[in-house]
Amino acid sequence: MAKSKSRKSSRAAPRPSPKLAARNKAADDEHAARSPAQRRKAHRGPTAVIKAAPPTTAPARRKWVYAFGGGDAEGRAAMRNLLGGKGSGLAEMAHLGLPVPPGFTITTEVCTYFYDKDRTYPKDLKAQVDVALAEVGRLAGKTFGDAENPLLVSVRSGARASMPGMMDTVLNLGLNDVTAAALARKSGDRRFAYDSYRRFITMYADVVLGIAHHHFEEILDDYKERHGYKLDTDLDAADWEELIARYKERVAEETTAPFPQDPQTQLWGAIDAVLGSWMNQRAVTYRRLHGIPKSWGTAVNVQAMVFGNMGETSATGVAFTRNPSTGEKKLYGEFLINAQGEDVVAGIRTPQEITEEARKEAGSQKPSMERALPQAFAELKRAHAALEKHYRDMQDIEFTVEQGKLWMLQTRSGKRTAGAALRIAIELAREKLISREEAVTRIDPLTLDQLLHPTIDPNAERKVIATGLPASPGAACGEIVFSSEEAEILKSQGHKVILVRVETSPEDIHGMHAAEGILTTRGGMTSHAAVVARGMGKPCVSGAGALRVDYPTQTVSAGGITLKKGDTLTIDGSSGQVLDGKVAMREPELAGEFATLMQWADQVRKLKVRANAETPADARAAVRFGAEGIGLCRTEHMFFEEDRIRAVREMILANDEKARRAALVKLLPMQRADFVELFKIMGERPVTIRLLDPPLHEFLPHSEEEIAAVAAAMNADPKKLADRAHELHEFNPMLGFRGCRLAIAFPEIAEMQARAIFEAAVEAGRAIGGPVAPEIMVPLVADKAELDAVKAVIDAVAQTVAAETGSKVKYQVGTMIELPRAALKAGQIAETAEFFSFGTNDLTQTTLGISRDDAAMFLGIYAAQGIFAADPFVTLDREGVGELIHIAAERGRASRAKLKLGICGEHGGDPASIAFCHEAKLDYVSCSPFRVPIARLAAAQAALGKSAASQA
Amino acid sequence: MAKSKSRKSSRAAPRPSPKLAARNKAADDEHAARSPAQRRKAHRGPTAVIKAAPPTTAPARRKWVYAFGGGDAEGRAAMRNLLGGKGSGLAEMAHLGLPVPPGFTITTEVCTYFYDKDRTYPKDLKAQVDVALAEVGRLAGKTFGDAENPLLVSVRSGARASMPGMMDTVLNLGLNDVTAAALARKSGDRRFAYDSYRRFITMYADVVLGIAHHHFEEILDDYKERHGYKLDTDLDAADWEELIARYKERVAEETTAPFPQDPQTQLWGAIDAVLGSWMNQRAVTYRRLHGIPKSWGTAVNVQAMVFGNMGETSATGVAFTRNPSTGEKKLYGEFLINAQGEDVVAGIRTPQEITEEARKEAGSQKPSMERALPQAFAELKRAHAALEKHYRDMQDIEFTVEQGKLWMLQTRSGKRTAGAALRIAIELAREKLISREEAVTRIDPLTLDQLLHPTIDPNAERKVIATGLPASPGAACGEIVFSSEEAEILKSQGHKVILVRVETSPEDIHGMHAAEGILTTRGGMTSHAAVVARGMGKPCVSGAGALRVDYPTQTVSAGGITLKKGDTLTIDGSSGQVLDGKVAMREPELAGEFATLMQWADQVRKLKVRANAETPADARAAVRFGAEGIGLCRTEHMFFEEDRIRAVREMILANDEKARRAALVKLLPMQRADFVELFKIMGERPVTIRLLDPPLHEFLPHSEEEIAAVAAAMNADPKKLADRAHELHEFNPMLGFRGCRLAIAFPEIAEMQARAIFEAAVEAGRAIGGPVAPEIMVPLVADKAELDAVKAVIDAVAQTVAAETGSKVKYQVGTMIELPRAALKAGQIAETAEFFSFGTNDLTQTTLGISRDDAAMFLGIYAAQGIFAADPFVTLDREGVGELIHIAAERGRASRAKLKLGICGEHGGDPASIAFCHEAKLDYVSCSPFRVPIARLAAAQAALGKSAASQA
Repeated sequence: MAKSKSRKSSRAAPRPSPKLAARNKAADDEHAARSPAQRRKAHRGPTAVIKAAPPTTAPARRKWVYAFGGGDAEGRAAMRNLLGGKGSGLAEMAHLGLPVPPGFTITTEVCTYFYDKDRTYPKDLKAQVDVALAEVGRLAGKTFGDAENPLLVSVRSGARASMPGMMDTVLNLGLNDVTAAALARKSGDRRFAYDSYRRFITMYADVVLGIAHHHFEEILDDYKERHGYKLDTDLDAADWEELIARYKERVAEETTAPFPQDPQTQLWGAIDAVLGSWMNQRAVTYRRLHGIPKSWGTAVNVQAMVFGNMGETSATGVAFTRNPSTGEKKLYGEFLINAQGEDVVAGIRTPQEITEEARKEAGSQKPSMERALPQAFAELKRAHAALEKHYRDMQDIEFTVEQGKLWMLQTRSGKRTAGAALRIAIELAREKLISREEAVTRIDPLTLDQLLHPTIDPNAERKVIATGLPASPGAACGEIVFSSEEAEILKSQGHKVILVRVETSPEDIHGMHAAEGILTTRGGMTSHAAVVARGMGKPCVSGAGALRVDYPTQTVSAGGITLKKGDTLTIDGSSGQVLDGKVAMREPELAGEFATLMQWADQVRKLKVRANAETPADARAAVRFGAEGIGLCRTEHMFFEEDRIRAVREMILANDEKARRAALVKLLPMQRADFVELFKIMGERPVTIRLLDPPLHEFLPHSEEEIAAVAAAMNADPKKLADRAHELHEFNPMLGFRGCRLAIAFPEIAEMQARAIFEAAVEAGRAIGGPVAPEIMVPLVADKAELDAVKAVIDAVAQTVAAETGSKVKYQVGTMIELPRAALKAGQIAETAEFFSFGTNDLTQTTLGISRDDAAMFLGIYAAQGIFAADPFVTLDREGVGELIHIAAERGRASRAKLKLGICGEHGGDPASIAFCHEAKLDYVSCSPFRVPIARLAAAQAALGKSAASQA
Repeated sequence: MAKSKSRKSSRAAPRPSPKLAARNKAADDEHAARSPAQRRKAHRGPTAVIKAAPPTTAPARRKWVYAFGGGDAEGRAAMRNLLGGKGSGLAEMAHLGLPVPPGFTITTEVCTYFYDKDRTYPKDLKAQVDVALAEVGRLAGKTFGDAENPLLVSVRSGARASMPGMMDTVLNLGLNDVTAAALARKSGDRRFAYDSYRRFITMYADVVLGIAHHHFEEILDDYKERHGYKLDTDLDAADWEELIARYKERVAEETTAPFPQDPQTQLWGAIDAVLGSWMNQRAVTYRRLHGIPKSWGTAVNVQAMVFGNMGETSATGVAFTRNPSTGEKKLYGEFLINAQGEDVVAGIRTPQEITEEARKEAGSQKPSMERALPQAFAELKRAHAALEKHYRDMQDIEFTVEQGKLWMLQTRSGKRTAGAALRIAIELAREKLISREEAVTRIDPLTLDQLLHPTIDPNAERKVIATGLPASPGAACGEIVFSSEEAEILKSQGHKVILVRVETSPEDIHGMHAAEGILTTRGGMTSHAAVVARGMGKPCVSGAGALRVDYPTQTVSAGGITLKKGDTLTIDGSSGQVLDGKVAMREPELAGEFATLMQWADQVRKLKVRANAETPADARAAVRFGAEGIGLCRTEHMFFEEDRIRAVREMILANDEKARRAALVKLLPMQRADFVELFKIMGERPVTIRLLDPPLHEFLPHSEEEIAAVAAAMNADPKKLADRAHELHEFNPMLGFRGCRLAIAFPEIAEMQARAIFEAAVEAGRAIGGPVAPEIMVPLVADKAELDAVKAVIDAVAQTVAAETGSKVKYQVGTMIELPRAALKAGQIAETAEFFSFGTNDLTQTTLGISRDDAAMFLGIYAAQGIFAADPFVTLDREGVGELIHIAAERGRASRAKLKLGICGEHGGDPASIAFCHEAKLDYVSCSPFRVPIARLAAAQAALGKSAASQA
């Protein structure tokens, strides 16, 4: 369809700066989410929401509204930040000539303006909306508010990043007493018209007016009872008309104003509500969990309604271009005949398959879309192929069939399991749709975690009590809980729980987060539970209809078995099985597509990846996951076993060097044996061993029994020992007597450790027939003099052991950079240190002055208020800690060009932090063995200058 | 006397680099001080100490030895770093034509070499010493080791900074069986000769051979008993000869080698011992207490002996050009007739006055030097006048009169009380000997503390039990202890003690440090106790001969009164009185010379000085001491009183905002009243109020009683409250839920405080008829967003209060910079902050990762090992913390040119740290009120580019 010249020119306003949203970030209103009561007040008057805003410095005529439909659009896919995901997808589909109901998108900049300017709108917005709405009517051949041929619209949110179900939507908008009658006439279906009208009233009342659903459910239940009706379908048009009258009465009672009959009032009320929902609690929580800045804002999409509930040739559905669970290249989806809008996603009715093949596989009796609506199916297949080729990625599509005609309502990059993502990326690369490098950037490194989850041991005995849908892969085991609140409480007490629900809703996000896995008895693969669980990487079984959940008695039962709250359950999200009790699990396979992706990643990354490991098991896992060395072996972690901790306590509590040496003599053979094992496993790979850095309080004996045991071993007076333990108590152990301070005060400790390392290196070297590569790391250095003092001890022991064994061990001595002063003095420290390892846990603690152990009290508040963009203990604080790392790297390399630089805090396994390490030109990152694959991929993405996170 | 040409040319070796000593610092040997047993071994062989040293990179012919005497010298006063204080003083006196016994100085570079090269000497040192010794002999008309006319020498240490009595000295060196006989012949006094020989043997045995005095005292006591002698003076020459034989036997027994008869062996043994004494425990302790780097080393002075013990026309003495206690311009000193060397300083005999006037004042019966030795007195007066004019400072002189002839043995800048220093500096400026600016630099700011000490209230009843010498001014009160060990123990337990001793020795330094004041029963104004106490700024009464100290019964008695250990005693170091019990004291007067100096200081300083104060008493003291505002009012300090702390606990433990507000309502009027008072006292001076920054654990109730009390006030369940308190317990409170984190989590707290401030400002402003100047400071900020959030609350309250009261208060909002991240992000933070105050206590803790509360465990070890040059909590760590301050100042001012910068950590009262603040161009320092004068002076000295410390 050709655009009219006049319309085109009226929209030729200058493009707003894409940085505007960011610039307005600071002024965002923290307390913007309003209570239902507040909403009622705000929306009572018909035009109250459009206020004159205070003057702004923005250009006078900005384009706030982008139209689409009729085979063309003002927006493009690339304008996602401005139009949101839904809006840009609709525009792009319109460009591609796909059947999109006409509509327009109010930009995210309006949302920013809205929160910036005390919930008002730009002055010229109304005019732009009026123009766009008229054009929608023209394309649809209807008129908004018209008494004969009324245009009905949907009003939906659409943020830059997908936030499924988090924000508000209003359908069927434009219906009132007059237009409902017109709709009845035009459609020839009175029941459809008044059913739509009553749906609109309840939805509008809920979303815009803040009147909860239960008001209307009460009226409906009461009506059905009085008339002896069982199902909604028992009600006819007259029934609905009567109910509508009662609904309107209830609205008037609750708001002291009549239900708005003016479609314009309805429209602006809905726009206001959709924008307002950006700050509702669900949305805030979701953004926090997914790291979405609140400054992004949401767009608002106003679109002509199409109806999937206009009889048996109408339908609504969701489809994926490839299987989102396995990645298999097959059209995959679900649909419901004679259903509207959110019915599929809501999971209230169990949907039908789209293809015949899938129907047969599922053994379903209900017809597939391929069979039931062949013409629409053919059009859908064509659309799918075009979209995947166009977007070069698996697409998730929402569609409606109105009386046989297909309408595309949404396309977006489809959410998928990590396994599916892997397979899709690799197959797309093999299909030459994308390059190998792009395939590498397509996988969010954090999702690899799912592939590293254990699965049920195939040889384990399975007591299957029910089977549902394999909604999110991986197996999980835990105590049964029936509410999200309980899940959260038990989790905080250290329990592992499985959240069991009939279905989940956005209110359950926090409980799903707390649970090991999620089990629902209702809903499909695209139900809320399934979508969210996949996003979280949690195992999920959905729609296990054989199970009966009884909330009042807190039980779940099937086939004679009844499990109660607290009983243990295992779910297999890959097969859909629900198993009684705790079932044996197996480590994941790391071959096939996983290995291919890792190989492609390794080809591009610059950072080396090491693992933090102390035990042989960890070291072996590290090697298996591709670690190129051990970046951090925390020797104090080697001392927590019963017989060792006593010797450590003796050492710490010793009153003099002699007693200390006596304890150290006991520890030496244990340390040496540990190191021999580690060296043998790691071979020629470097093994960075950190000298003892005990959090003193973790080793001190507390109970009288513990003290007595140590006293007996030391042949000491328990009373004196208790005094000494008390003397060693610290107010702030994090800033206390630890790290190299211990080695300087008691050089004999460093001496013992160095001896254990060198003797082990000689022994292991002889055993494996080649040299091993110890790197000895001195912790908590603030000044070169400290490192010098400890290095002198190490070097002396090295010489002694060489003389004793006749074998010289090649080794390096380096230091942790984990104090701000060490970063500043890195130039001098590097005169002695051969390597630096940034201990970013401690460096974050000291740079920000935050104890990680105590931060929970306020970091949550900081996150909620947006004061910190991310938890600095999860993602490295670039501006603070990052600057210190840059300073240290620069000064360190200035005095020692070949200085080796690494990071060994937990940030070493965080993709965003790894990207920073790449930019800072570090040599390696070190993380927990299970994070090694994540780090390898993140390092590759950093090298490609693109991270999966930035594509979200 | 003219020097021979040949000697001159032989000493024309190139001058060594003055930086050499510093370069060798790192290699200094920590464990250099050897035990007596080790010494014995090392010194058994006669030439063992001169070893060939390994080759060095230093120039082949360096000048290690500087001669003086005969009216000329190779050194000058300016060569103090090379020649030490004594050596450069002797050289300068020789230049001035004063009578100096000839001698030479072995430079401090030899000491550095000695410790650098495993206790060996430069190859060419021996030859240089031989040449110099020959020249001494020539000038003295004697020959070292000569059998007829032997030259005897003293060998003394002499470091760059005075370290009185800390290192070793050997007198009468060169005596052996042959030369003693020659001395007897030449002097015509056999008793003198053999008395000198036996003194030499005991001294040499002690200092060089490590054989303690008691060996010889036993022999002497035994001998006296057998011969019925009471006093040493009962022994004649023959007795001493016999004793000498026994002494030599004992030496041979103890060392398994005969007492060295070879004068060369004696000389090098003594040089070795003097250098070795640089690392003895006393010296190490003294240096640590006085901040003297061990790298400086000591020189060794070898000088022809002159004898004060050659009869009644011989004497030895010490004199000051002005009174070191009061500063009065009068020749002042003490001498002993027929005494040698250290007899005056040792305090064993009570000495006589030098001038007649002083004798009369003291009411002494013994003749003054003026009367007894008029010629030598006249020469001494001349020398004093010349030296003071030359050095432009009060001099401390040691002299000996040998058979009527005066010899000058030492001159140095005299130690003095703070009061004397003040008077002398001001009088020297008024005499135009120095400028006012120089007068300002002459006072060590830290000594002002003494002038701020309380004195005995003149109206108080004084129960005087004895009167001694007013050895160090100021009054002190405490429990009696009789040993330094006990003084230290009780001090560590929080007791205030007075150390009561017959006399003190260098072994007592640590006890004197621990005591409030020192009382001795023996010794004069220049005794060890007196000199050291003045140096420490501790009150001291010395030579209170009426008191009898009985160590075994731990009592001190006089005139029928017996006090025992633990009884309370007061001493008045300004009058010499010893008073029973605790006597009322009075605040010091700050007028007169003190005010003059402060005025001169104020004229040159650039830094403003504020005080840290919360109470009206502190604020008044601050104003009295010249503070220009309050730089830090810690509001949490205002809450420690009984009734308040309960309300604070209610606030902290509140479970919700409502309960918190209920507690805050109780606190508001208290806070407001406090602020009204502070504002009234400070008037238009700025008052910086820090919002609540509680160390949470200090406020939490711990006992059941405390919890019950809070629970009652809150009408809450004690059990729940205890749980909440437990929940709030922190592992590292220093890095916990404090500072602005509290204000952000609970904005109602900041709201209450802001209201209290603004309401108080309005009220106080009305009361004093002019505006007050509140500056509100937000603590523990790490990011601009935190400050923004809190500032928004403050600004809102300001508007509300202005509306309520009709009075607008002018105020500033700023922040503490006390986290490394805040320093790095200062540019952004300054967009909001109108001022920065560096909280260097916290900044030091976080930058170095050291908890001040827990640092004792290792900071002592660090100091002992020289890993930290100074305690970073006392003197600001320039390289670490200092760099962060520079960064913050630069970035902060770049974004806000008029940003006000101050410091409010305890470093604000430390002169070295103040010098840093001046260099960093801060606007002000803030310190405790009693430190304000110190800060004013230190700021002036910093502005003059010269600190008293650097002149030491």
